[in-house]
Amino acid sequence: MSSVNYDELMQPVIAFLGCTTPQAWLDTAKNNLELLMQDHANCEKKAASTAMNLMFRYSFFSDLQVRLAQLVREEMLHYEQVLGFMQRRGQAWQSLSAGRYAGGLRKEVRTYEPEALIDILIIGAFVEARSCERFYALAPIVDDELGRYYRYLLKSESRHYEDYIALAKEVAETHKLKNINETISLRVDFFREVEKKLILEPDDVFRFHSGTPH
Amino acid sequence: MSSVNYDELMQPVIAFLGCTTPQAWLDTAKNNLELLMQDHANCEKKAASTAMNLMFRYSFFSDLQVRLAQLVREEMLHYEQVLGFMQRRGQAWQSLSAGRYAGGLRKEVRTYEPEALIDILIIGAFVEARSCERFYALAPIVDDELGRYYRYLLKSESRHYEDYIALAKEVAETHKLKNINETISLRVDFFREVEKKLILEPDDVFRFHSGTPH
Repeated sequence: MSSVNYDELMQPVIAFLGCTTPQAWLDTAKNNLELLMQDHANCEKKAASTAMNLMFRYSFFSDLQVRLAQLVREEMLHYEQVLGFMQRRGQAWQSLSAGRYAGGLRKEVRTYEPEALIDILIIGAFVEARSCERFYALAPIVDDELGRYYRYLLKSESRHYEDYIALAKEVAETHKLKNINETISLRVDFFREVEKKLILEPDDVFRFHSGTPH
Repeated sequence: MSSVNYDELMQPVIAFLGCTTPQAWLDTAKNNLELLMQDHANCEKKAASTAMNLMFRYSFFSDLQVRLAQLVREEMLHYEQVLGFMQRRGQAWQSLSAGRYAGGLRKEVRTYEPEALIDILIIGAFVEARSCERFYALAPIVDDELGRYYRYLLKSESRHYEDYIALAKEVAETHKLKNINETISLRVDFFREVEKKLILEPDDVFRFHSGTPH
């Protein structure tokens, strides 16, 4: 038996985000668990790939390298686990287009360095925090086995958003930017609003990170 | 104390390759350990990236997905370990161009599927086998700490080349190719010769997988 207090664990994650997941999304999720599982697999693979792309783009930054490498390993392990669920449940691989979420966040990334890297890391923080929040909201409405797995994921991932924010601050320090805490905090506020809109506004497509179904 | 018999472990790896590493490469390696370490770090990261690219390109192939995901995790862990060595030894990150090895193998990949995938997997087998063979040859000529690490690597990697060949055969089976063992075996022979040339022919640049220094 796990004695983790999930409500307590989730408190800072939920405080970091601009909104919680709308009930309409959860209702749709409940009726589309196979699609959700497939998109979850895709998300884990894409998260690993994004982290690896950052590793190639910022090779010289060795603290970033190690933390991203660890992240890649963790996302790959989760990917294997989700594929395992799909296989045990007899769910065949299906090809799914990407939703609007990642692209909607990415188009706000500034085009000059180190601001571009800082923005990408802040986006990473929001994606991790939102994933956690959704696992937490999904856990009680899916079957027990999947619910246990979602709780395990949110436990292991609930600190990732903080890692990303810490990395953004380190990048700012390395580049000797001024008023680092304030600068990062303003940018976090900006992306909080962008992310909130993507979650709350009507969305035609249902995905792990999609907006409100209508 | 490890009771592993490395000679025995290496026997099939060396039998798989067309030649062993020339003494001239080992002599150069001994005098360029920092460069070798940096290139080794790059190789681990590139191997992970190649495996991940295959995962995106062949999403539907779920057995391949899991094995490649495990490979990515292993290469990432080794990458972190090599960065750890560099940091403890006060070795700063340096930017290094790629050698001719991977490109020299890649240009022989057939341009149609599933033959392209089969070729990439066979190349993966040769890169893994060669890395193993070089760790084995380097272990006794570097310092004890690094020697122990190279032995640990060759132990964990000595079966990778077989995994790649097994995957190539599975791909051939899935696509119902005829005379699979013979077809794969002919292609292995072909790449054995290409790889052997890249290792034995004079090379202007010294890298982990470079040819004979001159």
